[in-house]
Amino acid sequence: MTQADVTEPATLADNPKTRLDEFEDYRGRMNERIDGLDHLGVKRFFALDSAAYREGALPSNTKELLGLVASAVLRCNDCVDYHLGQCVEAGFSDAELIDALNVGLVVGGSIVIPHFRHAVETIDLLRGRQTSADTDLNGGNAD
Amino acid sequence: MTQADVTEPATLADNPKTRLDEFEDYRGRMNERIDGLDHLGVKRFFALDSAAYREGALPSNTKELLGLVASAVLRCNDCVDYHLGQCVEAGFSDAELIDALNVGLVVGGSIVIPHFRHAVETIDLLRGRQTSADTDLNGGNAD
Amino acid sequence: MTQADVTEPATLADNPKTRLDEFEDYRGRMNERIDGLDHLGVKRFFALDSAAYREGALPSNTKELLGLVASAVLRCNDCVDYHLGQCVEAGFSDAELIDALNVGLVVGGSIVIPHFRHAVETIDLLRGRQTSADTDLNGGNAD
Amino acid sequence: MTQADVTEPATLADNPKTRLDEFEDYRGRMNERIDGLDHLGVKRFFALDSAAYREGALPSNTKELLGLVASAVLRCNDCVDYHLGQCVEAGFSDAELIDALNVGLVVGGSIVIPHFRHAVETIDLLRGRQTSADTDLNGGNAD
Amino acid sequence: MTQADVTEPATLADNPKTRLDEFEDYRGRMNERIDGLDHLGVKRFFALDSAAYREGALPSNTKELLGLVASAVLRCNDCVDYHLGQCVEAGFSDAELIDALNVGLVVGGSIVIPHFRHAVETIDLLRGRQTSADTDLNGGNAD
Amino acid sequence: MTQADVTEPATLADNPKTRLDEFEDYRGRMNERIDGLDHLGVKRFFALDSAAYREGALPSNTKELLGLVASAVLRCNDCVDYHLGQCVEAGFSDAELIDALNVGLVVGGSIVIPHFRHAVETIDLLRGRQTSADTDLNGGNAD
Repeated sequence: MTQADVTEPATLADNPKTRLDEFEDYRGRMNERIDGLDHLGVKRFFALDSAAYREGALPSNTKELLGLVASAVLRCNDCVDYHLGQCVEAGFSDAELIDALNVGLVVGGSIVIPHFRHAVETIDLLRGRQTSADTDLNGGNAD
Repeated sequence: MTQADVTEPATLADNPKTRLDEFEDYRGRMNERIDGLDHLGVKRFFALDSAAYREGALPSNTKELLGLVASAVLRCNDCVDYHLGQCVEAGFSDAELIDALNVGLVVGGSIVIPHFRHAVETIDLLRGRQTSADTDLNGGNAD
Repeated sequence: MTQADVTEPATLADNPKTRLDEFEDYRGRMNERIDGLDHLGVKRFFALDSAAYREGALPSNTKELLGLVASAVLRCNDCVDYHLGQCVEAGFSDAELIDALNVGLVVGGSIVIPHFRHAVETIDLLRGRQTSADTDLNGGNAD
Repeated sequence: MTQADVTEPATLADNPKTRLDEFEDYRGRMNERIDGLDHLGVKRFFALDSAAYREGALPSNTKELLGLVASAVLRCNDCVDYHLGQCVEAGFSDAELIDALNVGLVVGGSIVIPHFRHAVETIDLLRGRQTSADTDLNGGNAD
Repeated sequence: MTQADVTEPATLADNPKTRLDEFEDYRGRMNERIDGLDHLGVKRFFALDSAAYREGALPSNTKELLGLVASAVLRCNDCVDYHLGQCVEAGFSDAELIDALNVGLVVGGSIVIPHFRHAVETIDLLRGRQTSADTDLNGGNAD
Repeated sequence: MTQADVTEPATLADNPKTRLDEFEDYRGRMNERIDGLDHLGVKRFFALDSAAYREGALPSNTKELLGLVASAVLRCNDCVDYHLGQCVEAGFSDAELIDALNVGLVVGGSIVIPHFRHAVETIDLLRGRQTSADTDLNGGNAD
């Protein structure tokens, strides 16, 4: 766990990287590395994974919510972070995300609690970005 | 597994119990037995479990779908059957249920396939009941 | 699942085999078969497994309770049945067993409920045996 | 569990269906049903699953063994049965299969034991088929 | 993993935060944040979780031990740390805690080993606090 | 997660510790600590774990590959790192390791992806050591 990492940067003025930024950098870099491995099965699995959340009989945003709860009950913080990012982009409110995560908590039990904490922190980090983006748009000094 | 149990009854004229009927009987009987244990914590857990799927920030039917996919990736046939029953009652089409289960398949991997088979069979059994109910309403010989 | 199997035999006068009797027969027969495989690692694992529940820094009965809850949260009916048998033999009351299983329910979530039902049924079957043994001792017609 | 099912048929002269035959029938029937659902993601997942065990950087038989142990530690009897069938077809001896399953036992712990029993029984059923096929070839009375 | 974090601080004279202190800070801060979300289901789940370990048919300390082993086999370091803290407070000796964790190791297999290492390190950190508290009581310069 | 830890050291000239070095140090130190606990069951479990990968009916290297895939589907980064080290020592090529991990990906689903990324990074770190060892052998300035 490096959950505590996020708290201090939040007080800094110069927008240092949060654990979420670092995860996304790492994720992007390693996905590229994996793509470069040229294993056809692996490539196809990654494509299938992306396709599972696209509009189908169910709308894309409902499927992102399914991915979020599946990640929560399987207790995978990276997967929770990824799906929370998608869910926030899809426009879900905090109350809706918490209501979805509550289903995961009841289905998966108290063993899910550490991941529930992590998820709530990630939601706060994602909302912090939105606020920060708004400020930048209005005020200026974006980096 | 007693998946094969369902196939023969389906050919019988007198509507014998399917594995789904048997599961529901057993579930009802044991839930009553558990209620009779008078353990406050257990009673509250069961109440909390029911409450998690009621209308909240998210509508009830979306939450049933979340319960279904959580059950699928955690590979619990009884839970899948229960949530499929709720989802069918909530009005989801076969295509929507399969699209939700596909998310579970991609997240949970091929180890989910036996439960995917089970889920598809349960959907067929649930639709069979609906057809049968329609026939009974129109024609008569309900038992 | 063959949970429903147990209900009907219970009404029969001639003590037919319950699902618990069948599990124990199967377990005994297969453990013998596995012993006959003569794989040293497997033999040692089975010995280590038995040894883990013997009196140590903790008393044996506390360790059987630990085995029960571990089995419940890992959702293994056979393991739950085995440890319930040991726990009943160790003298735990129904209230104590339910209190232990409640910890498993809260830790493991609603996905544990089907195994909670199974466990309660197994406790009833085990108590049924005790009653039956008492009757036999007092009245006679044991087979 | 229907583990006990297999023992009695084995003593019958007319080769009734074993639980393995029933599983294979069910599996074939439901896979066809799933193919008929026409969900592109599901179809592709099934194709990807088959492809993962074909000759690649590793030979196909090594990959079947990997599938077997993955199934054992994830505690899926149907998956264990499927991969054991493939492994027997690939020519692995009983001793090799047990040695692979022992890795699964040590990695996955005593919670794997019920699946270890199931696996050993399945190996016996698969070998029984081979013997039976030999007898039929040599002697005649095939049905 | 940040397991290595703990080793260096241990050599420092001025009692810097260990990973356990950081976990507890984070846990406290996030639990407060979660309480502030005002989701009734989530609040009730947290209350039910606390209640499960209170004196009932079984004494509270036995139930903490059950929570520890359930956490170990489900492989959740945060949960293991929390329950170890409770168990140490309840007065269990190192030998008793290791004997309980050994049940978790045998049930859950070698996949539990990294969590076993983590648990042993946490026990050492918790005992370190006790020693440190004793020193402070006797010597003085507590902060 | 501390996945990002590895990236910066890689650019430094003086071979600082990678996350893999830190894991191995920690693992060695804690295994020694655990050995010192003098719990017979725990000692035997560790011995049994080592023995499971020694030459038997199956060659040792095949069993290391089984341990790797079992670790991947059970989603344990420490275990994946350990078995990758053994597999690289046994002479498996990158292509073979990826082909094995692909089986784990298909069996275990997208929830395995973060561990797949971790594994690929570990393979790169292990190969980096080999290169570094070669350089040291040819050029000299080994520390």
